[in-house]
Amino acid sequence: MDSSKKNSIDNGEVQVSRRGFLGKGAALGLAGAAVALAGCKAEGGNAGTGASTAAAAPAHAHGGSEVAPGQLDDYYAFISSGHAGEARVLGMPSGRTLKRIPVFNMDCMVGWGITNESKAIMGTRPDGTLKYTTGDTHHVHGSYRDGTYDGRWLFINDKLHSRVARIRMDTMECDKITELPNVMGMHGLFPDKCDPVDKSVNYTTRVFCGAEFHIPLPNDGHDLDDPAKWGALFTCVSASTMEVMWQCRVDGNMDLVATSYDGKFAASNQYNTENAADLAGMMAAERDACVFFNIERIEQQVKAGKFTTIGSSKVPVVDGRLAANGDPKTALTCYVPVGKNPHGVNASPDGKYFVCSGKLSPTATVIDLARVAQWFGGALKDAREAVVAEPEIGLGPLHTAFDGKGNAYTSLFLDSQCVKWNVDQAIAQFKGDKAAKVIIEKLDVHYQPGHNYSSMGETRQADGKYLNSGNKFSKDRFLPIGPLHVETEQLIDISGAAMKLVADHTAYSEPHDGIIVKREVVKTRQIYTMTDFPNAVTAETAGVERRGNKVHVRLMSQAPSYSMPVIKVKKGDEVTLTLTNHDKVEDLTHGCALPTYNINFIVNPQETKSVTFKADHAGAFWLYCTHFCHALHLEMRSRFLVEA
Amino acid sequence: MDSSKKNSIDNGEVQVSRRGFLGKGAALGLAGAAVALAGCKAEGGNAGTGASTAAAAPAHAHGGSEVAPGQLDDYYAFISSGHAGEARVLGMPSGRTLKRIPVFNMDCMVGWGITNESKAIMGTRPDGTLKYTTGDTHHVHGSYRDGTYDGRWLFINDKLHSRVARIRMDTMECDKITELPNVMGMHGLFPDKCDPVDKSVNYTTRVFCGAEFHIPLPNDGHDLDDPAKWGALFTCVSASTMEVMWQCRVDGNMDLVATSYDGKFAASNQYNTENAADLAGMMAAERDACVFFNIERIEQQVKAGKFTTIGSSKVPVVDGRLAANGDPKTALTCYVPVGKNPHGVNASPDGKYFVCSGKLSPTATVIDLARVAQWFGGALKDAREAVVAEPEIGLGPLHTAFDGKGNAYTSLFLDSQCVKWNVDQAIAQFKGDKAAKVIIEKLDVHYQPGHNYSSMGETRQADGKYLNSGNKFSKDRFLPIGPLHVETEQLIDISGAAMKLVADHTAYSEPHDGIIVKREVVKTRQIYTMTDFPNAVTAETAGVERRGNKVHVRLMSQAPSYSMPVIKVKKGDEVTLTLTNHDKVEDLTHGCALPTYNINFIVNPQETKSVTFKADHAGAFWLYCTHFCHALHLEMRSRFLVEA
Repeated sequence: MDSSKKNSIDNGEVQVSRRGFLGKGAALGLAGAAVALAGCKAEGGNAGTGASTAAAAPAHAHGGSEVAPGQLDDYYAFISSGHAGEARVLGMPSGRTLKRIPVFNMDCMVGWGITNESKAIMGTRPDGTLKYTTGDTHHVHGSYRDGTYDGRWLFINDKLHSRVARIRMDTMECDKITELPNVMGMHGLFPDKCDPVDKSVNYTTRVFCGAEFHIPLPNDGHDLDDPAKWGALFTCVSASTMEVMWQCRVDGNMDLVATSYDGKFAASNQYNTENAADLAGMMAAERDACVFFNIERIEQQVKAGKFTTIGSSKVPVVDGRLAANGDPKTALTCYVPVGKNPHGVNASPDGKYFVCSGKLSPTATVIDLARVAQWFGGALKDAREAVVAEPEIGLGPLHTAFDGKGNAYTSLFLDSQCVKWNVDQAIAQFKGDKAAKVIIEKLDVHYQPGHNYSSMGETRQADGKYLNSGNKFSKDRFLPIGPLHVETEQLIDISGAAMKLVADHTAYSEPHDGIIVKREVVKTRQIYTMTDFPNAVTAETAGVERRGNKVHVRLMSQAPSYSMPVIKVKKGDEVTLTLTNHDKVEDLTHGCALPTYNINFIVNPQETKSVTFKADHAGAFWLYCTHFCHALHLEMRSRFLVEA
Repeated sequence: MDSSKKNSIDNGEVQVSRRGFLGKGAALGLAGAAVALAGCKAEGGNAGTGASTAAAAPAHAHGGSEVAPGQLDDYYAFISSGHAGEARVLGMPSGRTLKRIPVFNMDCMVGWGITNESKAIMGTRPDGTLKYTTGDTHHVHGSYRDGTYDGRWLFINDKLHSRVARIRMDTMECDKITELPNVMGMHGLFPDKCDPVDKSVNYTTRVFCGAEFHIPLPNDGHDLDDPAKWGALFTCVSASTMEVMWQCRVDGNMDLVATSYDGKFAASNQYNTENAADLAGMMAAERDACVFFNIERIEQQVKAGKFTTIGSSKVPVVDGRLAANGDPKTALTCYVPVGKNPHGVNASPDGKYFVCSGKLSPTATVIDLARVAQWFGGALKDAREAVVAEPEIGLGPLHTAFDGKGNAYTSLFLDSQCVKWNVDQAIAQFKGDKAAKVIIEKLDVHYQPGHNYSSMGETRQADGKYLNSGNKFSKDRFLPIGPLHVETEQLIDISGAAMKLVADHTAYSEPHDGIIVKREVVKTRQIYTMTDFPNAVTAETAGVERRGNKVHVRLMSQAPSYSMPVIKVKKGDEVTLTLTNHDKVEDLTHGCALPTYNINFIVNPQETKSVTFKADHAGAFWLYCTHFCHALHLEMRSRFLVEA
C-alpha cells in the first residue's frame, strides 16, 4: 500500500495531516490561548531532552500485533470505557474485543438492566425502575496477592454517580455496585495490595476512591452559594463486602489513586488545591499536590471512635485536611507538592516510588515512599523533601507506566508522544549529576494520548513487553465515520531497545484506562452450577403458579425448545418469568425475548434469570430464543397468551 | 508461534478441539436426535461433492487482514448485532470496529435514549419514558441507485418489536424508527432497487419487511386458542417518509427478503408453510416455499381501493395467501416450492436468480426470475418450474453470497463450512449434465456459520474480493472469557482460485448479517451545521428562562468551558437543558453529564442536543464534560444548583 495515497482519497474533509491537526491545536486553546502553560519552556518538549523517533508515518514497520486464525492472544487487556459505562476485555496483541461487560450501562444483549438479578445489582427506585442507566467508567484495576494479580476481581469506578463496581474475573460479570455517600465525581480508584499492619493479609481487602468534585456536606441544598465551605472526601470500600468503611476529608480535587506494595499508603494526585470553584482559581497556585493517606493511622482513629458523620450517612469521616494535620507524627495525610494540576499518580513495580505528572508543567515528579514514611515519622522538615526527582519530560505529561527494568513511559498529551525515561537517571540528575541521561526515546502517538499502561506494569511482575497508549483523537488514522471519530488504542512493543508501534487498534469512545494481564492469571468458569441459583427451575417446579393477580411462570430451556409451548396469563397480572437453561454444553446459551413487552435476556448453560412485568396489554406474543442455539433456533418459541 | 502449544495451555476447560466440539454437536440435537434431518443423505456433505480444503488448524497461512498503523481499510462493513440492538461499522480487512451506531438500544456514551431528540426517534410512552429499551437487529442493507449502493441510507430491522430503523450514512446516525402494525417477529428486510413501473426511479424508494410469527389479526386478545386463524403479513415501508405503505397477508412464516434489480419482485423464503404452531407441525411438509410478491399488481390493487384494514390500523392490507391467488394472471404472490425450512434468499449480482437454501435439506434452490415473470404471465403450469437448479451442497445450508464471477458461497451450519459452487454448472447439472462440476471448494469455518456476505456482493458491482462468515460459536478460537463465549466473523479472501481464511475477527454477540461496501461509496459529513438545529443556542439566546416551574437552561460549550459557570433552579422545577457545541474543530466533541440526575450525552461540533428532567432533589451538582476535549477537560464544569 502506498501510504500517501491511502491517506488522501475518499473524503475531502479527511485530508488533515498530523501537522495540520497539531496546528489546529491552537484552536483548542492548547497553545497561545488565555491559559498559559505554567512552567513550560519552549525547548522543554522537543529539544535537548531526547531524540524523537517519529518522522514520516508510518514510522515503524509493523508486525507483531496480528494473531493468526486459531491462535490465542498472549495477554488480556481489561479496559474502562468512559461514558459508555461498561468494562471491556480485549485480547493482546491482536486488540480483538473478547467481551463487553455491562456495568453501569444497560445492555439488551445479555439483559443487563432488564432482569431482576441485574436490576438488584444496578439499583432501583421505589417503583422498581432503574435508578441510573448512565455511567462514566474511568479506571479499572485488578485485585492483588503477593504484589501481583490474583485473578479474582476487577474494580471499576463510575465518576458520574460516584459508584464502585466489582467484576468477578471467573465469570467476567459485575456482581456488586456501591454508591458512595458524601462525594461527587469519584474519579480515581485503586485496590490495596496488602494490609498496612497484618502482613499475612498480603492480598486486596480495600478499594480506595478519590473524589474529584467539592460539594456541600451534606449536599442537601445548603451552602449552595458558598463553595469555600464545600469539600471532597477520600473513601475506603471493603473489597469483600463492597461496603464503605470510612472516608477522609481533604483539600483539593482528587484525581487518580495509587497504593503502595507494603499496604501503608494510598495516594491521590490533586489539582485545585486552591479549593476554587472556577477555572482561573483552579490554576492559581504554582504547585498542586499528591496527597498520601496513612492507612494505619486513619483506621486507628476510626476504631477509636474519633470521627464524625455527614448528614444521614453513617460512614465514619476523619479530617485529612492540611490545617488539621500540622504535626507529621500524628498526621493522617501528607501533601507532597508536585507540578501544577497533575493528572496521574503511578506506583513503580519495585515498590519504591510514586510518579506524578504535571499536566500544566512539563515535569514528572518522583516521590520516594521511604521518605514519605520518614515524613510521617517526623524525620523530614518539609513534605517536598520526599521528592527525589522531577525531570522535564515534555509537554502535557499525564500518566506513567513501567517496564520493570527501571524505565518509565509517560504520555505527553500536548506533544502527542510517549516519552521513555529512566527513573534512576532522573534521580541522579535531581541530585546534580549533569551527565545523567534521563530521556531515552520519544515516540509519536496519534493523537493526544491520555492513559497509557504496560503489560503487568502495575504489579511486581511488570514484564516490559507491551505498552498501550489510549489516545483521545484518531483524526485521519481510520476511515471516516461522520462527525464523531473513533478513538484509538495504539499498541507499542517495548521489549526492544527502541519502542515499536505495532498496531492502531480502534476503541469505541472513550477508552480511558486499563491493565494488561498475562493470560495465565485468568482462570474462568465455563459452565454455571444450577444449584448456585436458589430460584432455579427444575422439572418438579416448572409450570405456572397463580396467587391472586401475581403469576409466577417457571420455564426451562433445552435446545430447541422451552418447556411450555403455551403460557397463559390475564391482562393486569403481575408476571414473574423465571427461566433456567438446562443445556449443559459449553456456550449453549439461550435467549428469551417477549415482543412488545420490552423483555430480552440470555441464560447461559445451567444459569437462571428472571424478569417481573405487568401484563398490561392483551394478545398473543411469541416468546422466542434470541441467542443462536441450534439448527432449529428459529423454531424455538412459545405462545405467551395474555387474555383480555 | 507453536499452534499446538497455544491451544493447550491456560485453562483446562478450553481444551476442546474442533473435532471434540463437533462430537458435542450430538448433545445439541444436531445429529441423531429426535429431529430427523429430512432429505439429508449421509454422503451429501462430505463425499463426492467436492474436496474439503480443511485439515489441521490453522489450515491457511495468514496475512492480508492486518492494516498497518496509519493505513486505511479498503472497505466498510456494516453489520447488525442481533439482540445487542445496535448497528456496527467495521473496517475491512482489519476487522476494526469503527463505530457502534445505537439504534434500538440505549447508549449512554452518546446519550441515545437520554436526549429528547433520540427519545423522539426511539418512541416514548405517555409519561415520557422510552417505550422500548431492547431490540433484536438481524439484517442491515444499504439504499441503492443503478443497482449499487448510493451511500445514502442503511435500513435495519428489529425482530423483537417489529420495527424498521433508518440510518443516515453521512452522519452514521439513526434518524427514524417505525413500528409496524399487525405483525410480530419482523425478521427479514430489504430495500428495493428500482420502481417496478417507472424505470427512471432507479433508486430505493421502498423497504420490504417479512414477518415471521403468526398472530391473531388484530392482536387484541381474541382467537388466542385458535392459531389456525392467525396470520403473517409482508410489509412495504416508504424509504423517504418511513411510513407504512401497504401490507400483504401470506401463508407461512417469512424469514429473509430479497429484491430484484428490475424492481418487479420482492421475495421471502418461508418455513412453516404448514401454518403450524408447534415444532413438529412446522416441519411436517417435505417442501416449504419462497414467496414472490408482484409489486406492481399489489400497488395497483391498493390504488384501486381493493384492500382491507386490520383493527385500528389504517394500513391497506391485501390478500396474498395461496387460496386467494389461484390464477397466476391476477395473482399478487407466487409460492415457489423449495427445500424444507429454508433459511435464506439471496439475489445474484447478474440480476437473474434468487437462491434459497434448505436448512433441513442439503440443497440450494436456484430460482430463475424470468421464469417467475412467466408464471405471473400464465406461461408456466407450476411455480416449481421456476426452479432451474437444486444442487446438493452440504448439511445445513443457510445463506448464499456471490463473487460476481458466477460463483456462489453458501454457509453450511451443520458442516461448519463455506461451500463455493458454480451457478451455471448447477443449472447444467439440473438439466442432466452429469459431467457438471458444481462444487468447487469447501472451507472449514469455526464454527456453525449463520450469515455470510461478500464485498459488494449484493450489488451489480460484486467484486469477489472478500467473504465474511458470521459464526455462531467460536469455542476454542479465543481466550476464555467465562460462560458466554465471544462470537466470530471470519474473513475469507475469495479473490484467488482457492478460498483463504485470513482472519478470526471477534464480535460481541450476535453478529448476524452485514454488507461489505467499498470505501469510495461512503461520503460522510465531518461537521454539523449549527442552523440545522432549530433549537441551537447562540450568544443571543443563551441563559436561563423561567415560565412558572418550567425552566429552560440554554447552554453553549467551547473548550474548555460551558457558557455559564453557575446554573440555578428550584427543587420541583421541570428543567429543559439545551446545549449547543460552538467548537468548530473536527471531532472536538463535548459531553454533558449531571451527577445523580442520570444525564449524559455528547454534542459534536456545531451540534445541539437537549434533555428534560424534573429537579427532584436539592443540592449542588457539578455538570461536567465527559468527552475528552482539551488539556483542561477535567476542569470543564459548571455548578448546577438546585435550591431546596
